[in-house]
Amino acid sequence: MKSASDRWSRVFITSVSPRVQDGDWHIKRTVGEPVNVTAGIIVDGHDLLLASLYVTRLGGSTEEIQMAPTYNDEYTGSFVADAPGLYTYYIRAWINRYGSWQEQYRRRFEANMPTAELKVELLDGATLLKEYAINAPLEDREKILAFAKRYSKGDIRAPLEEESLQLALANDPQKGAIQSNALTVEVDRKLASFAAWYEFFPRSSANVPGIHGTLDDAASRLERIRDLGFDIVYLPPIHPIGTTFRKGKDNNPNAKPGEPGSPWAIGGKDGGHTSVHKELGGLPAFDRFISTAKDLGLEVALDIAFQCSPDHPWVKEHPEWFRKRADGSIRYAENPPKKYQDVYPLNFECAEWRALWEALKDIFEFWIKRGVLIFRVDNPHTKPLAFWTWCLGRLRTKYPDLIFLAEAFTRPKIMYTLAQLGFNNSYTYFTWRNTKEELTDYLVELSSTNIAEYYRPSFWPNTPDILHEYLTSGGRPAHIIRYVLAATLSPVYGVYGPPYEHIVANQHPNREEYADNEKYEVRNWNWNDPNSLQSLFQSINQIRQKNEALQQLRNLRFLKIHNPLMLAYWKKSGSNSIICIVSLDPFQEQEGELQLPLEELNLPVAAPFQMLDLLGGERYIWQGRRHNIRIDPNTMPARIFQVLRRVRTEADFDYFV
Amino acid sequence: MKSASDRWSRVFITSVSPRVQDGDWHIKRTVGEPVNVTAGIIVDGHDLLLASLYVTRLGGSTEEIQMAPTYNDEYTGSFVADAPGLYTYYIRAWINRYGSWQEQYRRRFEANMPTAELKVELLDGATLLKEYAINAPLEDREKILAFAKRYSKGDIRAPLEEESLQLALANDPQKGAIQSNALTVEVDRKLASFAAWYEFFPRSSANVPGIHGTLDDAASRLERIRDLGFDIVYLPPIHPIGTTFRKGKDNNPNAKPGEPGSPWAIGGKDGGHTSVHKELGGLPAFDRFISTAKDLGLEVALDIAFQCSPDHPWVKEHPEWFRKRADGSIRYAENPPKKYQDVYPLNFECAEWRALWEALKDIFEFWIKRGVLIFRVDNPHTKPLAFWTWCLGRLRTKYPDLIFLAEAFTRPKIMYTLAQLGFNNSYTYFTWRNTKEELTDYLVELSSTNIAEYYRPSFWPNTPDILHEYLTSGGRPAHIIRYVLAATLSPVYGVYGPPYEHIVANQHPNREEYADNEKYEVRNWNWNDPNSLQSLFQSINQIRQKNEALQQLRNLRFLKIHNPLMLAYWKKSGSNSIICIVSLDPFQEQEGELQLPLEELNLPVAAPFQMLDLLGGERYIWQGRRHNIRIDPNTMPARIFQVLRRVRTEADFDYFV
Repeated sequence: MKSASDRWSRVFITSVSPRVQDGDWHIKRTVGEPVNVTAGIIVDGHDLLLASLYVTRLGGSTEEIQMAPTYNDEYTGSFVADAPGLYTYYIRAWINRYGSWQEQYRRRFEANMPTAELKVELLDGATLLKEYAINAPLEDREKILAFAKRYSKGDIRAPLEEESLQLALANDPQKGAIQSNALTVEVDRKLASFAAWYEFFPRSSANVPGIHGTLDDAASRLERIRDLGFDIVYLPPIHPIGTTFRKGKDNNPNAKPGEPGSPWAIGGKDGGHTSVHKELGGLPAFDRFISTAKDLGLEVALDIAFQCSPDHPWVKEHPEWFRKRADGSIRYAENPPKKYQDVYPLNFECAEWRALWEALKDIFEFWIKRGVLIFRVDNPHTKPLAFWTWCLGRLRTKYPDLIFLAEAFTRPKIMYTLAQLGFNNSYTYFTWRNTKEELTDYLVELSSTNIAEYYRPSFWPNTPDILHEYLTSGGRPAHIIRYVLAATLSPVYGVYGPPYEHIVANQHPNREEYADNEKYEVRNWNWNDPNSLQSLFQSINQIRQKNEALQQLRNLRFLKIHNPLMLAYWKKSGSNSIICIVSLDPFQEQEGELQLPLEELNLPVAAPFQMLDLLGGERYIWQGRRHNIRIDPNTMPARIFQVLRRVRTEADFDYFV
Repeated sequence: MKSASDRWSRVFITSVSPRVQDGDWHIKRTVGEPVNVTAGIIVDGHDLLLASLYVTRLGGSTEEIQMAPTYNDEYTGSFVADAPGLYTYYIRAWINRYGSWQEQYRRRFEANMPTAELKVELLDGATLLKEYAINAPLEDREKILAFAKRYSKGDIRAPLEEESLQLALANDPQKGAIQSNALTVEVDRKLASFAAWYEFFPRSSANVPGIHGTLDDAASRLERIRDLGFDIVYLPPIHPIGTTFRKGKDNNPNAKPGEPGSPWAIGGKDGGHTSVHKELGGLPAFDRFISTAKDLGLEVALDIAFQCSPDHPWVKEHPEWFRKRADGSIRYAENPPKKYQDVYPLNFECAEWRALWEALKDIFEFWIKRGVLIFRVDNPHTKPLAFWTWCLGRLRTKYPDLIFLAEAFTRPKIMYTLAQLGFNNSYTYFTWRNTKEELTDYLVELSSTNIAEYYRPSFWPNTPDILHEYLTSGGRPAHIIRYVLAATLSPVYGVYGPPYEHIVANQHPNREEYADNEKYEVRNWNWNDPNSLQSLFQSINQIRQKNEALQQLRNLRFLKIHNPLMLAYWKKSGSNSIICIVSLDPFQEQEGELQLPLEELNLPVAAPFQMLDLLGGERYIWQGRRHNIRIDPNTMPARIFQVLRRVRTEADFDYFV
């Protein structure tokens, strides 16, 4: 008998949003970002309702936030988390019994009901107030009882005094209150929602061509990377590299002597996941690298790939953590008929899985203790999802500043589920979304659906594994286009820097990846090439830093521009309003009519306003809804406009002063 | 430690649909209507999955239905309930371990892997099969073990035989399976999703003007109502009517002697909710009425209004069930400054609420035992929602054929919640949705959103309380328009028959209701007026009966017609395809170009097809997408076309033969 117990309530909470998977998983926010909670709350009849939002930080005290009715029986309340961590919140709603009584009384009074009848009603009010007084603090109690006394004596004007309601609201016993299930929000630090990542191979950072660079060489590149405006440097694995079945240049199955091998073939005689490759300078060099980064205000992201080369110490120390074939040999990675004999996957389902899972979590903790708070996790979708729930949940509870980026290029439900169960950032399909329709559809999905509550995309125009044909065929303009799109559409983005800067466009003949890939060889880069895209990187990162609108995702709106090869979009935060117009054609000039929704943009319909081109430095005075935009990809395929309502005569921004 | 128990699964069920309020409430279907269940199911890596849907009828055995993958990691399974009642279903998913192994083996085999290596793999297959054999029935066990033996002996072609997979699928031990939460579907009989209701006041059914009719008079009207094609006759309350504060003609607060009073002022010296008004003929006449209806194949719906007149026996027998004022008097209904002194509301929160709730449930049971299975519940939104959950749930468990119609004209969240917690049919805002935009928006909400999973609208063009201005000003054409809309847009509809038939359009000057309202006086109707809308009722009900497409709601699609005063829509079920075109202008001729999505309609793009006007009887040969439609409201403001792909030369339908 669902309701015929003593615990039934007349109040129903019909929905609470946002929530992910019926409330099973956390929504995500960052410090300073408001959590706006909305609930549908109803009651039979005409009684007035009160509702509060109760927020508790893990291990902290609970804060009560009054919710306000909006429309259609919806109530809203908001809070801002001041530190990273997991917050729990629930809604409690109850009938405002005194307020409902008072409202009815007021209507009777105003309808000039006979005094005798009003006096009868007053007695109900007195009874109610006496109940409210019971648990009120002494001072309030006395005031409430004074009102009750006036009611009992027949003072028909007393209930019209505002104070009686204030006292009742402050001391409502909340009889028959109902509570929603608890929901959770994972609050990250700001870097989880707004960051520019720069990826490079430390072994390619030596000054002398052909020489294997060290982490000290890599550290010497950090100042430049900081000056370009990046926040995070991401290093591919830095561990000892196996020699058995080592891969040679261009993924050749047989390495020649002296070839360095793939950093993802983790583990050798010098150690495994908690060691640093000797040629990179070992752990001491790593510590110096972290220290340099810290001094520059940069954070370091490490690559965590849970797989072992045949030379990894665990192969001998913990053979029980690997799968074995019927002949007793350890099973290497395979996708029949393809064999990856240089990689042994771990068996997450082995009999000793508890010990294995703990050991894997310990790897994270090892690096956390050395100052790393950001991890790019390799292929998380090939490990049990339950492992990540457990591992990330445990780590985040202890270290709320951690950020995990999921390198899962797989089917959508798996990518979204990984985000639900704990990954703070995620790689995306951005690299393969190149047309106007593809970009629009995908960005609407990421920014304007429930997915935006938990999945934070990280847009990468390239990675060592992904060099899209659009970049190989479109050259420099294509590289600019894709970089601008990544950095302005998504507040978190990254670039595999050196080849992108130098517009390296030679693709591997059989794969969608760079030829002469750094995964298998040491490359050498000119770190200060004036023809590189360095200055573009710098400008874009500065623009992102100075414009709050570009630091958010859910504020993205597409604008109409009448050309299928041109994309226009708008982002707004407070008074900061940015319009980006990007030509998707890296070859030819394109022209299109842009349509501005002036009212939405809060721009004057019949007066001029200012458009500042933050990339080109030009300033335009516009008026009206329709504007013809012409873009020549060979000069600059994108415009990033800051929109200013007023037209000023003096320079009012400082980007290009 | 959420996952580091022994009960973690590699398989995740990411979503199950349809579901209502995170699965807290039932979805609704009727007997014979399929329940299509879809789930997102994922696993790490590349293993194959299997999933089953398990369906249990309350108190019955469980049926397993294999789910099939569709796309994007979604799986679907379907079942059809064969009887009304509550069904529970959940999804179970697991890794197809043998299938995954076999697939990998096949790829190795086809890539010509050396026999020695294949033989090593075969041993894994043998181990797996031995595990599958353990709990297999004897016959299968022997066959499985025979395969295992061949594998052990190195028969490298054996796993390619289809039979090994079939045996494994039939005997999968489902290791590491995961189960979704259980969801529920409330299955109603067909009359809950497809029915035409006819409302009339039995006291107005006498042959002689001015005479109070009896239920025997009312019974004599049933054959005609049946012949007009209605399924359900709905009677306003038939109980003794109170005399204290009785309302007179046109809601006059003081009845004159001899005035009959409102049937909703329930209870008098002759009894309360389980008695029948003496002037209607008492319980014996009621039993005869039910019996006549049953013989005619009609069902009777009673009005249940949980409120009492001051003369109701409960006022003396159970004063504890009412609210009292501080002076000891029983509190009448009020909306200050308005007083409803003829109505005492029940106090659902009184100390004796358990007894009251049981007594109210007993009222339903009293009428159920007398043959009533359908109830129109008056103002359910002014009684605690928790009461309905309990009461309807209890009753439906015992009597699964019950149908409850919620007369809740209130705010949307409350109306939708009442449907969620158990009402099978609901009144709607249809009466106030008269323009093309209003109708389109509202019908899309009702037919194409999650609301359609639990809320079954009942469209009424009028009720005793609601006579919309559209009808008063538009006369006969407006009455036809609104009737056709109600009956073709919604598979469940009803009409407050007598005044609608006779196009009575005199509205109460101060209210949106009929003047000279039958609620307060006995009326007399000409039940066989040739100028009434009888023949329209009959045609429309026949068309609904013969066309399955009109018996559903979720199949509604609007079509483009270029005139803001014309509405076009399409419903399809199997090969039955209906297009309705309704002019919303009751005064002037309207013309508009209809656009047919021929491919969707499964119609030839470059060949003629047939359009049969089921109301007018005409037959048209059409070709192409665009057709000009002209509608004169003074002849017939609506067209109901049956669409036939083929052009025939002989009459191929029998409506107007």
